[in-house]
Amino acid sequence: MTSEHLETHFRGRRVLITGGLGFIGSNLARRLVGGGAEVTLVDSLNPDYGGNLANLAGIEDRVRVNISDVRDHHSMKVLIQGQDYLFNLAGQTSHMDSMRDPETDLEINCRAQLSILEACRHYNPDIRIVFASTRQMYGKPDYLPVDEKHLLRPVDVNGINKMAGEWYHILYNNVYGIRACALRLTNTIGPCMRVKDARQTFLGIWVRLLVEGKPFEVWGGEQLRDFNYVEDAVDAFLLAATHDDAYGHAFNLGAEPPISLLDTAKLLVEAAGEGEYVIKQFPADRKKIDIGDYYSDFSLIRDRLGWEPRTTLLDALRQTVDYYRQHLAEYL
Amino acid sequence: MTSEHLETHFRGRRVLITGGLGFIGSNLARRLVGGGAEVTLVDSLNPDYGGNLANLAGIEDRVRVNISDVRDHHSMKVLIQGQDYLFNLAGQTSHMDSMRDPETDLEINCRAQLSILEACRHYNPDIRIVFASTRQMYGKPDYLPVDEKHLLRPVDVNGINKMAGEWYHILYNNVYGIRACALRLTNTIGPCMRVKDARQTFLGIWVRLLVEGKPFEVWGGEQLRDFNYVEDAVDAFLLAATHDDAYGHAFNLGAEPPISLLDTAKLLVEAAGEGEYVIKQFPADRKKIDIGDYYSDFSLIRDRLGWEPRTTLLDALRQTVDYYRQHLAEYL
Repeated sequence: MTSEHLETHFRGRRVLITGGLGFIGSNLARRLVGGGAEVTLVDSLNPDYGGNLANLAGIEDRVRVNISDVRDHHSMKVLIQGQDYLFNLAGQTSHMDSMRDPETDLEINCRAQLSILEACRHYNPDIRIVFASTRQMYGKPDYLPVDEKHLLRPVDVNGINKMAGEWYHILYNNVYGIRACALRLTNTIGPCMRVKDARQTFLGIWVRLLVEGKPFEVWGGEQLRDFNYVEDAVDAFLLAATHDDAYGHAFNLGAEPPISLLDTAKLLVEAAGEGEYVIKQFPADRKKIDIGDYYSDFSLIRDRLGWEPRTTLLDALRQTVDYYRQHLAEYL
Repeated sequence: MTSEHLETHFRGRRVLITGGLGFIGSNLARRLVGGGAEVTLVDSLNPDYGGNLANLAGIEDRVRVNISDVRDHHSMKVLIQGQDYLFNLAGQTSHMDSMRDPETDLEINCRAQLSILEACRHYNPDIRIVFASTRQMYGKPDYLPVDEKHLLRPVDVNGINKMAGEWYHILYNNVYGIRACALRLTNTIGPCMRVKDARQTFLGIWVRLLVEGKPFEVWGGEQLRDFNYVEDAVDAFLLAATHDDAYGHAFNLGAEPPISLLDTAKLLVEAAGEGEYVIKQFPADRKKIDIGDYYSDFSLIRDRLGWEPRTTLLDALRQTVDYYRQHLAEYL
């Protein structure tokens, strides 16, 4: 099946997206309404996170927006009912924020997840759930590319809490039969990402500064990474939701080939046709939670669900820069 | 060093034990006061958990007892100050309770742990911490014996939350330099264990019924397990605390050879010189979180810290039965 038609599977189905006004959630919503799904978006619009009403431009009238926090279990208990699918994307994503305020990270990434799953168990056990997990839980790799057999050794509070959050989903699948699976996202980029700061991805602040005509900072530069364009990540969510044999598993997303941060910076400048960067030493407080090189082996999801990224990094960067050249003001 | 003298390392040192009125905590306290340590015990005396004032018989006047819950962060913040060592043993241990009430398990095994570590970071960064972790987080083994390289794939909420709790400790060691390590306990048995029910260990209820002259139930019977006598587990806590190269690591405890539940039942009857058991089918609700055979490879702690269990299972069972023949009434 070509990914252009993935969303048609959801025609007339009721879909709830937590973090639905965020970067990936809103891109997912756009695809789903295009396919004829009845989409409800839950988002706290907490200014520290990724939610932004601007992300709904053009589909405002085709989705239901419910402003509430996943920590509000009364609200979640009501919203979960009657849904066919839950794309569970709400999360605290900043590594540094998780160290500064570990309890808030725990509340969102652990407790709220457990509470959502309990709500599903009691009020909608037939729902299907795809959870947005993260490569962050692998920590500093023992080997590359990192596959799902790699030990989880998180290097920050966020990685620990996301690990627990992912496992609650797998457990509720295995014990209670609530169909749930997880995608361990790598660096995802594209229109609607947070560019105000580096809370969601360092590439956000790069793009912002570039579009503002200012030099952006490359910390270190030699570290290897892989990047997914948001539409490719959305494909993975749609595929996972519709494949019964995805449930109970956690899958790496990823891209080939890996690229250094310095080469990523060069490619961004190439994509934009302009721009400058400066190389900076890695700040000391980040060094301790740095993971060195990271890139994924995503053969499990490729072999099992037929997913692979289709967008080159150059194209991804071009579309991202084009978007923020038009829309930057809505993201500051 | 012979383990008889391990506790002399703690002479004059200030030691805090959470879960200090519990099974392992109270045995540890006994050894530490014998070595001349200044011991403070924190315990909630929550009747669902392991704390019991009877566990202090004979050392009541040589320890300071502070009744409070590890979820009470104000209390912990005060108690942590001025301590040289923290043996962090308070936890919710029942697998079934964690499924019935996952949020309470999360509060105790995740949030309280994070809060204790934050208190250490802010008010006593020089403390040394040994955390009581569990083999439960490995889930159903891929291979036997299970070493620390085995993936963590918990099969119940308790296993997930303990996994997070352990990782907070390792993380605070690695990022903030708060010396902390973890022992992944296997089935621990001995005097002062909870025998009222199976919340702490199924062997508790076996011993209780045997001492009461009633048949005990063996569920299944073929599953292999390993058991540590509590004094051997206490050795491991003392050793880990005094070895600088333990910090930042998680170590399996364990025993050789593994033994089936049926053979354990027979050995218990042999140790007691009397007793009966009946074989029962595994209950359906437990089957889903059953892990099949489990026994540890404990060569990491043996090679690095020189720990190994010294008590045979037969001796462990004898001493346990003897204890409850005298003290059962205090544990019901």
